[in-house]
Amino acid sequence: MFYTDNKLQYPVRVDTPNPLFARALQQAIGGVEGEIRVAMQYFFQACGARGNPKFRDLLMNTAAEELGHIEMLATAVAMNLDGAPLSMQEEMAATDRVVGAAMGGMNLKNLLSSGLSAMPVDSDGVPFDMSHIYASGNIAADMTANVAAESTGRTLAVRLYNMTDDAGMKDMLSYLIARDTMHQNQWLAALEELGGMTGAFPIPNSFPQAQEKTDFSYAYLGFQADGSAPVPGRWAEGPSIDGKGTFVTGKLHPSDQKPDLGMARPDSGAQAEQIG
Amino acid sequence: MFYTDNKLQYPVRVDTPNPLFARALQQAIGGVEGEIRVAMQYFFQACGARGNPKFRDLLMNTAAEELGHIEMLATAVAMNLDGAPLSMQEEMAATDRVVGAAMGGMNLKNLLSSGLSAMPVDSDGVPFDMSHIYASGNIAADMTANVAAESTGRTLAVRLYNMTDDAGMKDMLSYLIARDTMHQNQWLAALEELGGMTGAFPIPNSFPQAQEKTDFSYAYLGFQADGSAPVPGRWAEGPSIDGKGTFVTGKLHPSDQKPDLGMARPDSGAQAEQIG
Amino acid sequence: MFYTDNKLQYPVRVDTPNPLFARALQQAIGGVEGEIRVAMQYFFQACGARGNPKFRDLLMNTAAEELGHIEMLATAVAMNLDGAPLSMQEEMAATDRVVGAAMGGMNLKNLLSSGLSAMPVDSDGVPFDMSHIYASGNIAADMTANVAAESTGRTLAVRLYNMTDDAGMKDMLSYLIARDTMHQNQWLAALEELGGMTGAFPIPNSFPQAQEKTDFSYAYLGFQADGSAPVPGRWAEGPSIDGKGTFVTGKLHPSDQKPDLGMARPDSGAQAEQIG
Amino acid sequence: MFYTDNKLQYPVRVDTPNPLFARALQQAIGGVEGEIRVAMQYFFQACGARGNPKFRDLLMNTAAEELGHIEMLATAVAMNLDGAPLSMQEEMAATDRVVGAAMGGMNLKNLLSSGLSAMPVDSDGVPFDMSHIYASGNIAADMTANVAAESTGRTLAVRLYNMTDDAGMKDMLSYLIARDTMHQNQWLAALEELGGMTGAFPIPNSFPQAQEKTDFSYAYLGFQADGSAPVPGRWAEGPSIDGKGTFVTGKLHPSDQKPDLGMARPDSGAQAEQIG
Amino acid sequence: MFYTDNKLQYPVRVDTPNPLFARALQQAIGGVEGEIRVAMQYFFQACGARGNPKFRDLLMNTAAEELGHIEMLATAVAMNLDGAPLSMQEEMAATDRVVGAAMGGMNLKNLLSSGLSAMPVDSDGVPFDMSHIYASGNIAADMTANVAAESTGRTLAVRLYNMTDDAGMKDMLSYLIARDTMHQNQWLAALEELGGMTGAFPIPNSFPQAQEKTDFSYAYLGFQADGSAPVPGRWAEGPSIDGKGTFVTGKLHPSDQKPDLGMARPDSGAQAEQIG
Amino acid sequence: MFYTDNKLQYPVRVDTPNPLFARALQQAIGGVEGEIRVAMQYFFQACGARGNPKFRDLLMNTAAEELGHIEMLATAVAMNLDGAPLSMQEEMAATDRVVGAAMGGMNLKNLLSSGLSAMPVDSDGVPFDMSHIYASGNIAADMTANVAAESTGRTLAVRLYNMTDDAGMKDMLSYLIARDTMHQNQWLAALEELGGMTGAFPIPNSFPQAQEKTDFSYAYLGFQADGSAPVPGRWAEGPSIDGKGTFVTGKLHPSDQKPDLGMARPDSGAQAEQIG
Repeated sequence: MFYTDNKLQYPVRVDTPNPLFARALQQAIGGVEGEIRVAMQYFFQACGARGNPKFRDLLMNTAAEELGHIEMLATAVAMNLDGAPLSMQEEMAATDRVVGAAMGGMNLKNLLSSGLSAMPVDSDGVPFDMSHIYASGNIAADMTANVAAESTGRTLAVRLYNMTDDAGMKDMLSYLIARDTMHQNQWLAALEELGGMTGAFPIPNSFPQAQEKTDFSYAYLGFQADGSAPVPGRWAEGPSIDGKGTFVTGKLHPSDQKPDLGMARPDSGAQAEQIG
Repeated sequence: MFYTDNKLQYPVRVDTPNPLFARALQQAIGGVEGEIRVAMQYFFQACGARGNPKFRDLLMNTAAEELGHIEMLATAVAMNLDGAPLSMQEEMAATDRVVGAAMGGMNLKNLLSSGLSAMPVDSDGVPFDMSHIYASGNIAADMTANVAAESTGRTLAVRLYNMTDDAGMKDMLSYLIARDTMHQNQWLAALEELGGMTGAFPIPNSFPQAQEKTDFSYAYLGFQADGSAPVPGRWAEGPSIDGKGTFVTGKLHPSDQKPDLGMARPDSGAQAEQIG
Repeated sequence: MFYTDNKLQYPVRVDTPNPLFARALQQAIGGVEGEIRVAMQYFFQACGARGNPKFRDLLMNTAAEELGHIEMLATAVAMNLDGAPLSMQEEMAATDRVVGAAMGGMNLKNLLSSGLSAMPVDSDGVPFDMSHIYASGNIAADMTANVAAESTGRTLAVRLYNMTDDAGMKDMLSYLIARDTMHQNQWLAALEELGGMTGAFPIPNSFPQAQEKTDFSYAYLGFQADGSAPVPGRWAEGPSIDGKGTFVTGKLHPSDQKPDLGMARPDSGAQAEQIG
Repeated sequence: MFYTDNKLQYPVRVDTPNPLFARALQQAIGGVEGEIRVAMQYFFQACGARGNPKFRDLLMNTAAEELGHIEMLATAVAMNLDGAPLSMQEEMAATDRVVGAAMGGMNLKNLLSSGLSAMPVDSDGVPFDMSHIYASGNIAADMTANVAAESTGRTLAVRLYNMTDDAGMKDMLSYLIARDTMHQNQWLAALEELGGMTGAFPIPNSFPQAQEKTDFSYAYLGFQADGSAPVPGRWAEGPSIDGKGTFVTGKLHPSDQKPDLGMARPDSGAQAEQIG
Repeated sequence: MFYTDNKLQYPVRVDTPNPLFARALQQAIGGVEGEIRVAMQYFFQACGARGNPKFRDLLMNTAAEELGHIEMLATAVAMNLDGAPLSMQEEMAATDRVVGAAMGGMNLKNLLSSGLSAMPVDSDGVPFDMSHIYASGNIAADMTANVAAESTGRTLAVRLYNMTDDAGMKDMLSYLIARDTMHQNQWLAALEELGGMTGAFPIPNSFPQAQEKTDFSYAYLGFQADGSAPVPGRWAEGPSIDGKGTFVTGKLHPSDQKPDLGMARPDSGAQAEQIG
Repeated sequence: MFYTDNKLQYPVRVDTPNPLFARALQQAIGGVEGEIRVAMQYFFQACGARGNPKFRDLLMNTAAEELGHIEMLATAVAMNLDGAPLSMQEEMAATDRVVGAAMGGMNLKNLLSSGLSAMPVDSDGVPFDMSHIYASGNIAADMTANVAAESTGRTLAVRLYNMTDDAGMKDMLSYLIARDTMHQNQWLAALEELGGMTGAFPIPNSFPQAQEKTDFSYAYLGFQADGSAPVPGRWAEGPSIDGKGTFVTGKLHPSDQKPDLGMARPDSGAQAEQIG
């Protein structure tokens, strides 16, 4: 269950509104690396968590935090849209080049659909699609998805920080970047609790590896057209990271099987030539 | 550049065709954990790789492998659809219960749209959406996304293995599971080359951490309605995983700022009551 | 800012798990009439609210409630998936007809992607798409969208109530139906505060009606092929509902303008025949 | 059944083509508030209408009108694209700043995909998704969805009217705004025929309210973190709008139930640690 | 402009309602081969047609026809849903096997979202996405897209005809199949008017072929891993179909260029290791 | 099975990087007329091909070629993003007007999500959706879809060629245009092998035409509101293109059937007024 207090987690200040930066910030709301994604991902992972209940609690606690991040960013978007041109006359009257390019450079939906407010869309106006909520029912797989989400999320926040020259926005982003630092570490820590590299992997660790084709489990295979060895690296030799095998390098030999589905069935809507 | 030889990477055999399992296999083709996703993800990551070229080569080599996995699975789907009912008469004539439930339990598009062949959709008939191709331009962030993809991918393959009782299908899946084992290890190995936990994180490691609000960088904050401390764990105390801080636990104090966007502008399409 | 307490708003009890009903409940989570939609819609409307701040508070308060509804439903989905068949052997061993049809009748993603947990998808496995979050920047338009959301939402909840024969599920749904009753009334009450039928409409009420083609503002026009009058009703005569006009009935006379875009430009990629 | 006459419902005139305004107009075609939405929504509601046939007729009649609105807007988009730059050379030769910004500010698909014609996409180039066609099978719920569609639709049309300085476009929009005025009134009138506030609500009115948890049916509940009362208003006290209850204000007391799904099943692809 | 008469183009009769066939029919409404697609495709092609106006008229006339096909199919879906089970009790009481499997085999949205009516979704419940409306601004390219649409559309209709054993449904489908026969011929005839194989192709025929790399214009190139020649056929030798070249067969020699993007820029959010 | 050699099929050279052209090129990667579409379409058609195996080989061979085209275009996008502004300061420092408009005119995701690399999205940032992969199981229908794909694809490539003034880009596009010329011819040649106009059509040619309502099979019907004949042309008289009939022109007479679904069922969530 959730509660609210109508306060912002951290102050949101915009010194010079910039509609183009409003558009960029939309990526942090409705982009695949954005805050809707992590808020809903942790929420659904929590709702489906089985086993030790502390993971549910950890996930739901962080979901609550991320909801507040959406709120901050949505406020920042609206503030950056202050003064955006609403008409061709305003557009042409603008003397500042960046602002003058604003209407063409905006998500027009931020003007036409939401009346100068934030939307759950990315920086090109594409709505967020909930298929990006990864909640696998495997707690370790979920943690890897969370590390990935926070890694791309912090990369995005850094790019936004580098993009803006507004001190208020830089301040807000420096907070969000710090939280992403923590969240990367937090999910890595959870993975450590789950056994770390050698305990948790290969995910799922509940499948008996004897049942997989073990000749291929730690083989780094080349798919080079000239049959040459693929590029060497840590992945090509030495003990595997999961501690359960040794990397070997080789070239895949295809099976002799040429895929052949035979003729089509008479009533299947195929051409007559496809029917035996 | 790519080449083909019209052979299957590994033999595909179906002992007893099962249209319901064909539907399940679609998840491994067009689901978010499926093979289109990894093939295209590694492909686009390769195309955008900057820095040491060996990562490009590693990624493109693996993309070539994954294309062959799609081919294997698509063949398996078509084979499992052999004998699927094409008409109500065939449906009613079926005596086997599982096959008898086939038409209602199929993706009907596998019959109506593709004529008993595989499609780039998931097990509920939802087409794959390329926004799931994560290629961030940050090579370490990409590796975390790849670990996540292979972790959910192997989880899916294990579920399919557990679901089927067909020896041919179990054999094919035992190969794919082994490859997922390798690929999890491979991307973890790449992450190790990039500095591992303490070198690569926080991602991106090119951002000077002095510019983030460091009070919040390693703070595990509670968002519990009663103000209680959040659930303890490895994430709550001790050195951070990235080796650059120490976890502390606390409660977030919201800012005093109540979000207030003020009145709406006269020409913005708001109600009169919203206009100052 | 948001807080959580890891408790359910209202008890969730499933007497007899039913995987098919789990699928049906998904509609109430990720369907367009579902709880993600209202939670996020009220959230974004709140974030963009301008004018009297009480609407922001009202909206955010209700968003917090709806988040708890998602949590309840996600718990109910997972509980209904208890005992769902994971393999063909389990499927064939089932003696109960409804459960026996379970695997084919399930969202297979509830098994393959989420490991017997809820997902942000609808009852056919289609992910929720955030374009359904209507937040227009016009507070009265938002209220009409909310009335519509709760009207379709309560209709859905009633259908689910009628579908199930599980006492626990009926109890949970009777709570959600009651809340939908309140929310329909609540948004209608907000509309009343905003002036009601004659004050708020036509939305937006800030546009001077003198600037619209007033001949057409209250005219009920027929588009019947034989030129006959369209079907009569309250909309065909008498005072308009917004109190600003009188309904008249007529037949539209098309303009004489036949749309003609002329020839294509030489470099526009048209066929030579289209170019002047 | 439908017929056409290849005439425009109302004259479409563009005095000064403006590719940026072409992009804005796309929102009125393929945006969620646009004309495809209402045309198809009324069409599908008509096709599924049960009960008094006059609602089917009313809906289909209006669907025919809205199809003509798409046609008008598509013509307007193409006309506004006249003279849009097709090459970098044309782009650089433009002396007018607004037009000079055209290529970057256009939906490039209007040039690359459709050859300077309209598309069924919104102002940011996102294709219209038919999940926005709300047709619930409950005639009153449908009417609320229609009021919402016309409210956001008229808001959009007003924003477009305010945005443009082209007399021809203002004339066309003043017609469309007038029709939206009528359609808002029309659907409200239909709702009145269906019993109005006290007869139609709560929707669906066919569900016996005795079966809902009546303690919660008219209770305005607070979800404030500090336990304070939520913001007062018409929704907080007095008779309910549907005339069937009295608003009371309170604070929700969560159930004592902490959601707990227990351990995962052995073959469900979970981590070993999640399995009992 | 459009008109309606609330009559069906051709009689729709269902002898024995079958909810599973209702689901199958949805593909003909909202599938990519369905009637929404052709109705809207011809409509938008008409709206964007430049050059000889007869193509606009032809397209819009056929769009009007296709709208009536959606209406017929939507009626057929609703009729097939008559008697579908609304509750688990009804489900279990069903004695007929096919109908008994109905609830699990239905699009549940046909019950939960639309109340036993048609929706603009495909047979797996996926909403139609308007990006499938191909209207290229090149009239010949449009005709090829229309031939493709009617070819897959007739294939779908034939599969539906073969699937059902209901005489009423077979009658309706035999009408729709005939119309698809006509429409395939109609668009091929339009292509003939545009010059046929040797006049219209390569599309667009307005591009001077001297500007393309003519060595590759009629070369059938092999991408076989072993360097062998690709499979022979009409495409491998002889005059090209467009009459402007001669087919030759060869093997592509890749350029020597290895793609190399160099190092990443310092502020681009890459890892430190990627930055020079 | 697939192999790679990390070489480009044809040289990719950008003389003057242009971020706006990078955005335009995205359409050729992730647009519906783009290379992902054809690569995956031929791949899936190959995987599902039944009948003469040479079509499978032809399709898979061309799929391999198209994968290399994506690689070329992705490289070109990244090269065109060289020097794109990463910050407002860089944006304002730009002196060149076209480049100066870059940030607003870019897909911001090319900067924020992918770090100056290509993405599987179109020129407006919309991700490619795999529902555009048409693979019908009918080999002739597939060929028509391929002709359509290459016709719109070449139209797009020509528009890009006309748009750019960069000699390197023009060179690359002249290669891709030539390949599209070949591929249009190739699929037309395949259609000729399948019997050409009179042998392959109407598709599917395996359905006995005696079972269709032959009165309507070659009738060009008018849907003009005034009952006038539709526009004449090759489609209006003379032998049909498939050689199996003669075109006649007429006016459709609607059936007398007014669609009427009757009353709603009591438990279906309809309004009370809809229930008999």
